[in-house]
Amino acid sequence: MRKVVTFGETMMRLTTCHHRRFGQSTTYESAFAGGESNVASALAKWAVPVVHVTRLPKSDLGDAVVDGFKSLGIDTRFIQRGGRRLGLFFVEKGVSIRAGKVIYDRADSAFATLSPADFDWPAILEGSSWLHFTGISPAISENAARACLEAAQTANRMRLTVSMDVAYRSNLWQWGKRPAEVVPELVKHCTVIVCSPHDTAELFGIYPRPDEDPFRSVCRQLMGQFPALTTIITTERGQQSASHNTLRGKCWQGGRLLVTDTTDIPNIVDRIGGGDAFMAGFIYASLAAKDTLSALRFGVAASALKHTIDGDLPLASVEEIETIMNGDTSGRLTR
Amino acid sequence: MRKVVTFGETMMRLTTCHHRRFGQSTTYESAFAGGESNVASALAKWAVPVVHVTRLPKSDLGDAVVDGFKSLGIDTRFIQRGGRRLGLFFVEKGVSIRAGKVIYDRADSAFATLSPADFDWPAILEGSSWLHFTGISPAISENAARACLEAAQTANRMRLTVSMDVAYRSNLWQWGKRPAEVVPELVKHCTVIVCSPHDTAELFGIYPRPDEDPFRSVCRQLMGQFPALTTIITTERGQQSASHNTLRGKCWQGGRLLVTDTTDIPNIVDRIGGGDAFMAGFIYASLAAKDTLSALRFGVAASALKHTIDGDLPLASVEEIETIMNGDTSGRLTR
Amino acid sequence: MRKVVTFGETMMRLTTCHHRRFGQSTTYESAFAGGESNVASALAKWAVPVVHVTRLPKSDLGDAVVDGFKSLGIDTRFIQRGGRRLGLFFVEKGVSIRAGKVIYDRADSAFATLSPADFDWPAILEGSSWLHFTGISPAISENAARACLEAAQTANRMRLTVSMDVAYRSNLWQWGKRPAEVVPELVKHCTVIVCSPHDTAELFGIYPRPDEDPFRSVCRQLMGQFPALTTIITTERGQQSASHNTLRGKCWQGGRLLVTDTTDIPNIVDRIGGGDAFMAGFIYASLAAKDTLSALRFGVAASALKHTIDGDLPLASVEEIETIMNGDTSGRLTR
Amino acid sequence: MRKVVTFGETMMRLTTCHHRRFGQSTTYESAFAGGESNVASALAKWAVPVVHVTRLPKSDLGDAVVDGFKSLGIDTRFIQRGGRRLGLFFVEKGVSIRAGKVIYDRADSAFATLSPADFDWPAILEGSSWLHFTGISPAISENAARACLEAAQTANRMRLTVSMDVAYRSNLWQWGKRPAEVVPELVKHCTVIVCSPHDTAELFGIYPRPDEDPFRSVCRQLMGQFPALTTIITTERGQQSASHNTLRGKCWQGGRLLVTDTTDIPNIVDRIGGGDAFMAGFIYASLAAKDTLSALRFGVAASALKHTIDGDLPLASVEEIETIMNGDTSGRLTR
Amino acid sequence: MRKVVTFGETMMRLTTCHHRRFGQSTTYESAFAGGESNVASALAKWAVPVVHVTRLPKSDLGDAVVDGFKSLGIDTRFIQRGGRRLGLFFVEKGVSIRAGKVIYDRADSAFATLSPADFDWPAILEGSSWLHFTGISPAISENAARACLEAAQTANRMRLTVSMDVAYRSNLWQWGKRPAEVVPELVKHCTVIVCSPHDTAELFGIYPRPDEDPFRSVCRQLMGQFPALTTIITTERGQQSASHNTLRGKCWQGGRLLVTDTTDIPNIVDRIGGGDAFMAGFIYASLAAKDTLSALRFGVAASALKHTIDGDLPLASVEEIETIMNGDTSGRLTR
Amino acid sequence: MRKVVTFGETMMRLTTCHHRRFGQSTTYESAFAGGESNVASALAKWAVPVVHVTRLPKSDLGDAVVDGFKSLGIDTRFIQRGGRRLGLFFVEKGVSIRAGKVIYDRADSAFATLSPADFDWPAILEGSSWLHFTGISPAISENAARACLEAAQTANRMRLTVSMDVAYRSNLWQWGKRPAEVVPELVKHCTVIVCSPHDTAELFGIYPRPDEDPFRSVCRQLMGQFPALTTIITTERGQQSASHNTLRGKCWQGGRLLVTDTTDIPNIVDRIGGGDAFMAGFIYASLAAKDTLSALRFGVAASALKHTIDGDLPLASVEEIETIMNGDTSGRLTR
Repeated sequence: MRKVVTFGETMMRLTTCHHRRFGQSTTYESAFAGGESNVASALAKWAVPVVHVTRLPKSDLGDAVVDGFKSLGIDTRFIQRGGRRLGLFFVEKGVSIRAGKVIYDRADSAFATLSPADFDWPAILEGSSWLHFTGISPAISENAARACLEAAQTANRMRLTVSMDVAYRSNLWQWGKRPAEVVPELVKHCTVIVCSPHDTAELFGIYPRPDEDPFRSVCRQLMGQFPALTTIITTERGQQSASHNTLRGKCWQGGRLLVTDTTDIPNIVDRIGGGDAFMAGFIYASLAAKDTLSALRFGVAASALKHTIDGDLPLASVEEIETIMNGDTSGRLTR
Repeated sequence: MRKVVTFGETMMRLTTCHHRRFGQSTTYESAFAGGESNVASALAKWAVPVVHVTRLPKSDLGDAVVDGFKSLGIDTRFIQRGGRRLGLFFVEKGVSIRAGKVIYDRADSAFATLSPADFDWPAILEGSSWLHFTGISPAISENAARACLEAAQTANRMRLTVSMDVAYRSNLWQWGKRPAEVVPELVKHCTVIVCSPHDTAELFGIYPRPDEDPFRSVCRQLMGQFPALTTIITTERGQQSASHNTLRGKCWQGGRLLVTDTTDIPNIVDRIGGGDAFMAGFIYASLAAKDTLSALRFGVAASALKHTIDGDLPLASVEEIETIMNGDTSGRLTR
Repeated sequence: MRKVVTFGETMMRLTTCHHRRFGQSTTYESAFAGGESNVASALAKWAVPVVHVTRLPKSDLGDAVVDGFKSLGIDTRFIQRGGRRLGLFFVEKGVSIRAGKVIYDRADSAFATLSPADFDWPAILEGSSWLHFTGISPAISENAARACLEAAQTANRMRLTVSMDVAYRSNLWQWGKRPAEVVPELVKHCTVIVCSPHDTAELFGIYPRPDEDPFRSVCRQLMGQFPALTTIITTERGQQSASHNTLRGKCWQGGRLLVTDTTDIPNIVDRIGGGDAFMAGFIYASLAAKDTLSALRFGVAASALKHTIDGDLPLASVEEIETIMNGDTSGRLTR
Repeated sequence: MRKVVTFGETMMRLTTCHHRRFGQSTTYESAFAGGESNVASALAKWAVPVVHVTRLPKSDLGDAVVDGFKSLGIDTRFIQRGGRRLGLFFVEKGVSIRAGKVIYDRADSAFATLSPADFDWPAILEGSSWLHFTGISPAISENAARACLEAAQTANRMRLTVSMDVAYRSNLWQWGKRPAEVVPELVKHCTVIVCSPHDTAELFGIYPRPDEDPFRSVCRQLMGQFPALTTIITTERGQQSASHNTLRGKCWQGGRLLVTDTTDIPNIVDRIGGGDAFMAGFIYASLAAKDTLSALRFGVAASALKHTIDGDLPLASVEEIETIMNGDTSGRLTR
Repeated sequence: MRKVVTFGETMMRLTTCHHRRFGQSTTYESAFAGGESNVASALAKWAVPVVHVTRLPKSDLGDAVVDGFKSLGIDTRFIQRGGRRLGLFFVEKGVSIRAGKVIYDRADSAFATLSPADFDWPAILEGSSWLHFTGISPAISENAARACLEAAQTANRMRLTVSMDVAYRSNLWQWGKRPAEVVPELVKHCTVIVCSPHDTAELFGIYPRPDEDPFRSVCRQLMGQFPALTTIITTERGQQSASHNTLRGKCWQGGRLLVTDTTDIPNIVDRIGGGDAFMAGFIYASLAAKDTLSALRFGVAASALKHTIDGDLPLASVEEIETIMNGDTSGRLTR
Repeated sequence: MRKVVTFGETMMRLTTCHHRRFGQSTTYESAFAGGESNVASALAKWAVPVVHVTRLPKSDLGDAVVDGFKSLGIDTRFIQRGGRRLGLFFVEKGVSIRAGKVIYDRADSAFATLSPADFDWPAILEGSSWLHFTGISPAISENAARACLEAAQTANRMRLTVSMDVAYRSNLWQWGKRPAEVVPELVKHCTVIVCSPHDTAELFGIYPRPDEDPFRSVCRQLMGQFPALTTIITTERGQQSASHNTLRGKCWQGGRLLVTDTTDIPNIVDRIGGGDAFMAGFIYASLAAKDTLSALRFGVAASALKHTIDGDLPLASVEEIETIMNGDTSGRLTR
């Protein structure tokens, strides 16, 4: 398969142990995580050549993140080193009827204070077929937004597939501009986006029409507005409790709405990173020349299986995901 | 809000790790716990001024309990220090179809051997609006029973609300008298009690009438017998398994039966302390001038949420409880 | 009760912690386990005199296994010590929709390289009423198969009940012969076997008739082929997910099919060893002179309860199992 | 070797983790421990047939203690089951210049409330060559003291070697009599005692003469007072810090003072149980027909090695102890 | 004793487990720590009324810090809540010949971005006898430096003892001014400082004279420059390895040099916070009206004992410290 | 620097936790380790391009080893995958006067059963300057010995530096030939060997002359026997206890004996892998064009520092090692 490039912040994730609340925990499990490098990690695990581009501080903590990438086989050559601190987030996992909580601590991180000129996008993207980033990066700082734009423009010019998970998080946008001033400019260069009908009002001023399926409705409007766009995907999550969700995927492509079956996910171990596993699965299966519905189904299966795995990364094989995708969620013991 | 005073034994709780059985575990998690201080802890967490009264040994273990109270903001000035040992209990949490087990080790504890004369109730209760204790204390020793009576009488005289969770545990009553000789004398001074129809025969010689809802039936008889009593509350627990319960609250007040909706609690983390969270929730909402049904619903929500939290204490905020109370048990991730 | 003798390999089981995947775990929980010693452990826990016969290396690891047997009260006098290594297996427990995985590492273990002549079966079986082994031992090596045959022949001659869990695992048979060349020779000496209709084709060349219940069908054919056989038992497992199974038992005896109710097992802790608990339960209840259906129900209850207990061993009391057997799977807290 | 019988209380030991102080630790490591059963455990580990006699409650915790004994091969047939609670002690290990702390919680334990008549000493001691107990048991309660006396008298009558570690702990003697009223009566029946010159004033009214080595001085007086006594042993501990001690043994026998070399013990892991390892080592080597000085040296080596092992029990082989005894404390890696 | 007020940043400390290096550790132990609150914690532990003033974010992590203060009995009423993040530091403890490492992550913390006007110093200091702060606060940000100055000026005006640990860390001074432009202005208002001869060049332009003891030399010059100053203290640390240090205290007061004995600290558990324990000990003993040499000796003992305790806080009693101070560093077990 | 190639077995190392003995531990820490890959890991950590060649099973455990290599930046392209099992070893770390223990379990491992023809040495060694292997590989199996010979011959032909740590372990040689029949054949192709005077009798029939320094004596004889050899190095270890060693290096080269200073290593964390760190350090410094004595000193420093790090790998930077090499073993905290 041809190379995929991902761009975005990777943080240290500090999770309380044994379902403890923040006020109870005296130990934290540490791992590295970030929307875009989660995608890179999954693709690398599935043997796709992948380059992750980010900025990390010159410190033992930054080194540990890079070593983690290397262990997965991610190409780390284009990672910038510098800045004052590693972005962090603290996680209290949800369970039963109790909601999970995430406390972000990414202000002034190495990534937030990156310098766009340090990234030589033509060199980075050389030989690649796909660029992926998310709407979190442009939310973090003006420089990060600028870097995304340059990456997307270059990739578009070099005829890569460009995907963006628009992932709107209102409380991240602190640097001055509103998302609607920034995100549409980025989507202009995208071929594929992940976008739910809940986000389009704030990001694009697009509202679902009352008489139409909301996803279909916003997709039709988005397609009208962004001619480069060919594919919009999303997941619909049913939440019976923090320990029990359901998931299905939807895709709008070529004027057609594709919908997967619903996967039931009981006894969830860790749902963070589920969206990234979906994106990674969709990219993998697309690169593997599956049809779009199969790619969507592979993405949903990858995401569902991620919910059973500790940490942000969907550390499962293609075969394991295909088992889920083919409807075998029986968890039968393999000897 | 005005001050609440709680009185009862606080113990060290030693719980096996990772669902291990007693015979398997070589490590125990320790925490402090006790029916009445669980209520105090919850109220303190919710910013109600609260005084907990108990007796603890002069030892590093006793100190650790006091420090724990302080960390929650509980007023510890009236705690007596002395006696030979800290009461303990060992817990093997239930899971799936396997029942949890509790081994009490509270014989001759500092609390069981307290001296009633050491507690200056008028001084302790000065400026308070509510006294709470449980039926466990009078079961432990004659002295403890006497102290409860003196506390209740004084509180009643000082026109506080007096609540008692009658919590009948047959195997605790070893000091000579039968519960029916002691408990009614205490309830005489109570305004609010927690009482289920299963307990009234043994405690009061009251039996539900066969042709009536059992809770309503015993409440009507109790009200007749105890004129000071205005409110009787209880929870009904459905037990699908040790990991999956349901809960609803009932209240008899002013000749009316109030019943909450049923809350489903899947994937239970730790159910011990659930009853205390219910009581605490009811006290909190009553002090916050909610109507009785709202107080009952808040109590049920606090109890349900407690089941998702490790340890006896319902370490959740008022907002989190209100989310559950308003029916959102989806456990949606908060970023 | 009279003595039971079990014969088979006991290994060190190394399980990843906290539902981690093999690639994630830097810590392993160790325990000893093996199909036949799991049965011995359960019987010893339930106060049945039991002798386990196996071969273990002379090393601190071998000593630890023997000490574990002793702690349960198993008679270890006939354990051979020698050989190069302790058999091992690595476990990644399943959860939710993710399947569990077992990696066996038993090649050239002390047991696989045993010498049949070292076991003096008449002396070992003296005073016993039951011999139990499984189809795993003859799969491991020719010598192990030979030892099983000698044990079964001797036991049969001494008029013991001889039980075999045929437990067909295709990937274990590496030493030269096909199972169909070995297993029938062993079953010839058995009174009781555990056998599912999925295994009979490979082991006996027996296929269920299309117009008949498959278990009944293969049982009738087996009975015809093996005159010594009086009883065939099996469990049917429903697998909603790795965390949620159902279980019921079936028995063919005296031309009659006995079937138990189905037990629901949510929130599974550890399902490995469930089949051994079933066998142990059936043996225990048979020795306790229960009727066959009761023995079957006791076996299913023991197996179901095992799913809630960490490790291979069903560390539960007879009373706890009877509670499940009597339908109380509510997991009600015992104080 | 002929059988040894030990009699005394076995407790659950709860130790804070990772050198934490009591006020810091939220986890405790549990193990079973007790002066006399520590001796029994060591002897059993070294293949001496040994019977431990004690009283434990009927509970899962009591069962766990018995199972632990069994795993070591200790004969548990004469253990009484009953009473209200298991004795406990809490440990904060010392390190560097910080002293370790022990909090005992053995009031009203199953052992303290034993009934002397329940122990049939002639039957228990039948076939044994040695009885061992300590001065802790008579300190706990009048009944325990009486049981010790009956055991010692019977053993003496049956011509066993009777050893007592007089182990004077002033704060344990709470039941009414002073140690000097009880201990001499017990020593009257002893052949061997462990006794340091610091304890003889309180226990026997014997003071070292100012012009003589204190140990020699008190030994001569003790020998005069107790004609049955043949041997008095003790260890002298040098304490550079909680992490670094030195140890040597002394023995008075046949009018001769034997003294071992001094063993240096740096980087101590856990010093509790060191005295019991010394006693066990002396008993083992005496039974193995070593000369007295060798027995003393074996005892010191066993004790020194115990300081490197977590928990009360000297889980080391005879060969490992002999390596230390022969002066090789280099800790050379064994591959 | 009269009240002490401390002012400075409190952070979350994240320490790798079991001597792991940053690149190895997947778990971190969390605790709260900071030079000034370490002093406050020690004083509170020793029953001195103490107020800690700082700024913490409104988050569950900020709440946990406040709860920790409360558990120690520290008055938290004057803590400001706000800002974007909690300051953090990561610790890899040293051991043997390997140096420990600290990675600070306090940029843009709640404390660094405090607003001086939010602190009403006359109200905070009312009724107090001592104000303590360190040279770390003015290094963090201009606002923090300003707040220190206002606090010191007000305290001086209110005739409190004002102490400052000048604690020069070159890499913290990033906000524009050099330490020599800021620190002398603060010391002008101080009565007591902790200062080593290594720091005076950078902070005050003062160099030890070549022909004089360096500490004495710089003290004489400092005294000349700062008339309010009465006392200068410091510790001299000998470093045999990361696991073995020695410590002695020095004090210049009234033209006299006081020097303590040297304390040997083998098998160090955690040396971070040792300097704060020294300061706290000196304050405590001064308030307890000890003479200066005794106060210095108490400070050194408190610091030495801190090295044996996990975390920044010297969680030891006055009695334990006095044992060390009196030369008993034998670590003798307390039963 | 030019590439280094290492060849040898990498195993899973399972270490008991917290200084527990094998019989006590219910948890094992897992890591990958092996003499040659330890060298590779160190070199990769120090930024030397390095290829490790081995054989690992196709399993999740084999994958985890490869991922670990990748995280360090080791080139894994030439690793063969196949065989039945991953070699293992179990470790009980020594402490104080207690010796550490290693139980090897490498029989029939993937490496032991490798096929020499699968390794295309000219391709593997292309572009490299150094080949390293140890005397453990030829001890394991005939095929492994053959592969070593082919590698050494090819490397020699391609004019690489060839180093071998002769590492004689008598109990490993089980496959038929004596070491003296195999090892000299290998050394014939070596430029550099690690060899202590204790090993030469068994390996080469060479004995130190009584009147000469043993290392010098055997070196002179070896040099005579193996003309290709230019350099012989070794370490001399002083063992005060398992927690306290000393180390110095010796080198024979060009007829001269070089000896380093002795480094004191107190409070050892983990000494396994110390020899490999020495070798790695010598290779690194040689490649960095240091003089031989400096290379020897760097090797000793790397080895000493390794003793302070958990696991087999010397996870320390060049700067950290140079600090030790320059005599600063004070463990001073780095902020």
